[in-house]
Amino acid sequence: MLKEAIYHRPNNEFIYALDEETLQIRLKTKKNDVDRVALIFGDPYDFNKEKKCWISKQKDMRFNGSDGLYDYWLIEVKPEHKRLRYGFLLINSDKTLVYTERGFYEQQPKDASFYFCFPFLNKADVFSPPAWVNSTVWYQIFPERFANGDFSINPEGTLPWKSERPSHKGFYGGDFQGIIDHLDYLVDLGITGIYLTPIFKAHSNHKYDTIDYMEIDPQFGDKKTFKQLVQNCHKKGIKVMLDAVFNHSGKYFSPFLDVIEKGEDSLYKDWFHLHGLPVKTSYPANYDTFGYVSSMPKLNTENPEVKGYLLDVAKYWIEEFDIDGWRLDVANEVDHAFWREFRATVKKVKPDAYILGEIWHDSMPWLQGDQFDAVMNYPLTNAITDYFATGSISSTEFVNTVTKIINMYPETVNEVQFNLLGSHDTPRILTLSGNNKKKVKLQFLVQLTMAGTPCIYYGDEISMPGKDDPDCRRCMVWDKKEQDTDMFSFVQKLITLRKKFDVFRTNQNFGFLDTAESDVICYNKQDTENELFVVINNSEDVKEVTLPIRYQHNNVLDLLNDEEKLLNTKLQLQGYSAGLFLVR
Amino acid sequence: MLKEAIYHRPNNEFIYALDEETLQIRLKTKKNDVDRVALIFGDPYDFNKEKKCWISKQKDMRFNGSDGLYDYWLIEVKPEHKRLRYGFLLINSDKTLVYTERGFYEQQPKDASFYFCFPFLNKADVFSPPAWVNSTVWYQIFPERFANGDFSINPEGTLPWKSERPSHKGFYGGDFQGIIDHLDYLVDLGITGIYLTPIFKAHSNHKYDTIDYMEIDPQFGDKKTFKQLVQNCHKKGIKVMLDAVFNHSGKYFSPFLDVIEKGEDSLYKDWFHLHGLPVKTSYPANYDTFGYVSSMPKLNTENPEVKGYLLDVAKYWIEEFDIDGWRLDVANEVDHAFWREFRATVKKVKPDAYILGEIWHDSMPWLQGDQFDAVMNYPLTNAITDYFATGSISSTEFVNTVTKIINMYPETVNEVQFNLLGSHDTPRILTLSGNNKKKVKLQFLVQLTMAGTPCIYYGDEISMPGKDDPDCRRCMVWDKKEQDTDMFSFVQKLITLRKKFDVFRTNQNFGFLDTAESDVICYNKQDTENELFVVINNSEDVKEVTLPIRYQHNNVLDLLNDEEKLLNTKLQLQGYSAGLFLVR
Repeated sequence: MLKEAIYHRPNNEFIYALDEETLQIRLKTKKNDVDRVALIFGDPYDFNKEKKCWISKQKDMRFNGSDGLYDYWLIEVKPEHKRLRYGFLLINSDKTLVYTERGFYEQQPKDASFYFCFPFLNKADVFSPPAWVNSTVWYQIFPERFANGDFSINPEGTLPWKSERPSHKGFYGGDFQGIIDHLDYLVDLGITGIYLTPIFKAHSNHKYDTIDYMEIDPQFGDKKTFKQLVQNCHKKGIKVMLDAVFNHSGKYFSPFLDVIEKGEDSLYKDWFHLHGLPVKTSYPANYDTFGYVSSMPKLNTENPEVKGYLLDVAKYWIEEFDIDGWRLDVANEVDHAFWREFRATVKKVKPDAYILGEIWHDSMPWLQGDQFDAVMNYPLTNAITDYFATGSISSTEFVNTVTKIINMYPETVNEVQFNLLGSHDTPRILTLSGNNKKKVKLQFLVQLTMAGTPCIYYGDEISMPGKDDPDCRRCMVWDKKEQDTDMFSFVQKLITLRKKFDVFRTNQNFGFLDTAESDVICYNKQDTENELFVVINNSEDVKEVTLPIRYQHNNVLDLLNDEEKLLNTKLQLQGYSAGLFLVR
Repeated sequence: MLKEAIYHRPNNEFIYALDEETLQIRLKTKKNDVDRVALIFGDPYDFNKEKKCWISKQKDMRFNGSDGLYDYWLIEVKPEHKRLRYGFLLINSDKTLVYTERGFYEQQPKDASFYFCFPFLNKADVFSPPAWVNSTVWYQIFPERFANGDFSINPEGTLPWKSERPSHKGFYGGDFQGIIDHLDYLVDLGITGIYLTPIFKAHSNHKYDTIDYMEIDPQFGDKKTFKQLVQNCHKKGIKVMLDAVFNHSGKYFSPFLDVIEKGEDSLYKDWFHLHGLPVKTSYPANYDTFGYVSSMPKLNTENPEVKGYLLDVAKYWIEEFDIDGWRLDVANEVDHAFWREFRATVKKVKPDAYILGEIWHDSMPWLQGDQFDAVMNYPLTNAITDYFATGSISSTEFVNTVTKIINMYPETVNEVQFNLLGSHDTPRILTLSGNNKKKVKLQFLVQLTMAGTPCIYYGDEISMPGKDDPDCRRCMVWDKKEQDTDMFSFVQKLITLRKKFDVFRTNQNFGFLDTAESDVICYNKQDTENELFVVINNSEDVKEVTLPIRYQHNNVLDLLNDEEKLLNTKLQLQGYSAGLFLVR
């Protein structure tokens, strides 16, 4: 048994409260190295005086997937007094080992103090993401390009609405009225949440260079229209999430202009990270910036005044407009201390607000319950697009990566992870997929059958193309003849299924199954109601897939074709197609 | 190269700010498996347009010890813009691998997004323990048993002061005046901090069952005397740390009595975790308790009133009496949310107050900068007593365990970890060592040459014996004839050396060295000024130890014997003795 591969530490994704009574515990071991793992557990204070021994029980852990190097194991326990000491019993044909905080033993140590400890499950530390998020299907809108509903507020030089490659700088006049006008379109698709990229007064078309966090950009409308938008959304069962760009402001943010103008005398000179005065905005700037972009000065979120201002912003848009969530731009570069206060502030005014960080890499430090509810799940995005769109990874790599992602954060976080196939910061999936719509459908299918909260980037559902920014920010196509209604219906159907069957939205008993066929993957999951079985052919060839034995000759509901059927030993799958079954 | 053993995650002890400019990074690999490790690092936004490649540099990591299973590697970097992407280049005779957040590659990935990320070193997130703690030598006082200086406040039935096995319940009349009277004794020993177990009004002799957190227990004195004690300590350069028992109160805490009396009508019923009413204090109690002790009801630290009360307590004793630190009893069973507020509150009134948690197990979740400065380092206590006192582990196990402990937390935490050989909760080291004073000396020597902040349990320095609680709480011996003055001088000497040479107090370049002799260990460390070299014979036999080549024929200052000497190839060590050298 390879001791060096066995890992557990009593924090992060390895042990956490699932709810106020339940702990979930994970362990990793070398792939295919351990046959059975049991949790040894008990109350830290239970002691058998006769045997001079800590009193413990055992319970087998479930296998929770392999990622190429490791097997993952999972278990839940409900400690009677909310206190837990625990270790792991590891068994294979060669050896039996007990793994504790102090290391490995052949025999179970008698002293409770040798074991790992989760000292007390305090309610205050339970991470409970907002209940509505897991059943929400999001739609990301880049307001400047979604729909122009009010020509009277078009910015100067507004270009004609057309689906062609936009430049970095052009304006097309999308606005709130345009969104209001098309809410029924979103309802028809099945959308229950919209995420708007920034809407506050800013210089650029993307509005990530804020001028005033308390004002709507006039090209989108005014506060009255925005209130109308939120109210209409709520009436139609749609939540609204805004984009908070708190890492940096724009160059025309009045405190920054004040510093440029008054230098040492400016009351705002500690609002930024200046390295010298006067301010030098040409490259290289003499202050901290987002990346090397001198028009985006980094805000000093440690300054109590800045903090106060930004937390007021966070409250204002919730209290006055009743928005339901904040997506936090460049969240990883802002200090943790700020985000802790941000969470406390936001949850105080709206306890079920969704707090979503934009972080592209391992985000564990932000997902410990004191900062964000979730992050944008780009690791999953990459796995899906690398496998289905660009074909740059193999089936095995896809399976390994997804398994690693599932075992990377607590399940409480996984349930509300923001799963996207693309955004205003990436090429569109159709383009990434070489315009192969069948490939795009497989990606939607995977996205909409995974735990988390999926988000569709505007226009992907009607097969809009687009390379990297700014091409991925084309004007939305509203001419029905130019929309891909087949793709729309496909996405619509998957959303309907996801809403109907809870099993779509959970990782419970999730697992990849082996298939003998290359370029075919297969996974299933099971909640208390249903068992879902998915098989996907990610090649252009027709495949005769030998089904896992447990599904051979099984009655299923074929969800994509709305028919009950009896599975055979094999299943024929056309090139780039999938079977989606509820097991009967 | 064993990939399964290679581990890094961008948080906890693996990457952290050492100061406002420097990141320290750790990696572990299988023991003896990798010959060279280099950090690949750069700014996340640096991109070579021609080569379409992220711009990175390399720097070799230092070997930082082995623990039996793993080798540890360490490095510091100062990223120019405080942002870092990084990976690891691993080389052995078979293979060269690059380890990134996305896994292992044969070639260095060109895309920055594949690498680990420390997005921004924000000042607010830098964990800076109080500067004075690392150079402090503590003395733990159990006030009831240290010295009786005011007979007028003896509790009823006070027993005569004698060093015999006390019962669980007896009182001996130790008090503040007794401590004040003996401060010169502590100064003589070299003590610069005292930690007092609880002093607030309580029922028992140990005072862990608080009746009133705002009042001094009258058997110790009054607030005036306590203020006098703190002031006298400060005049003599001694810091004062109190014990905060916030997990639970005593049974006679007035809010609890109120709940017992008034039941449903009590205004305090949400101050505890009641499972039913009326309150039932006989076993099993119908409320959460410390362990199964019904006279210690667990406080509901999530209740804003309780929180307000306890945070007022935390502030009060700092603001009114100028205490320098809080040791937090049963800190692990209180919610993290409470401790975060506690830290903010305490550091606001005294930024350099020391916050020390009583946690016996892996404490990483409390040591991320937002809660405690350090914890009581019982894992080190166990390693030292298991090896030197009871002989229950081998030299190899000792070396492995200490190396594991050093690599378990950030160095910033290690510097202020509270290193103790025993406390009011453990048998005394003399007794654990089978009354072998030579063994006790070796333990003091190790304790006082380790990074962290050492604490001497009252009486250990004069060889007081004592088994488990309550025997380890005997009355302090003040009769000079009964004190072990040889032990006192030995400890005094080590303290003097620790104060004089910074190298005693750091982990910089710490390493165990191989010795061919069984039961002999050898370690060294080196700061910018000095190199310390320690060799210890943990057996009763005389040993001829072949010195590591780097120290053979080297001039050294023999610190224990105050003489310059030339080391030979071998060093003769008597049974249970040590050499302590500054390398010239």
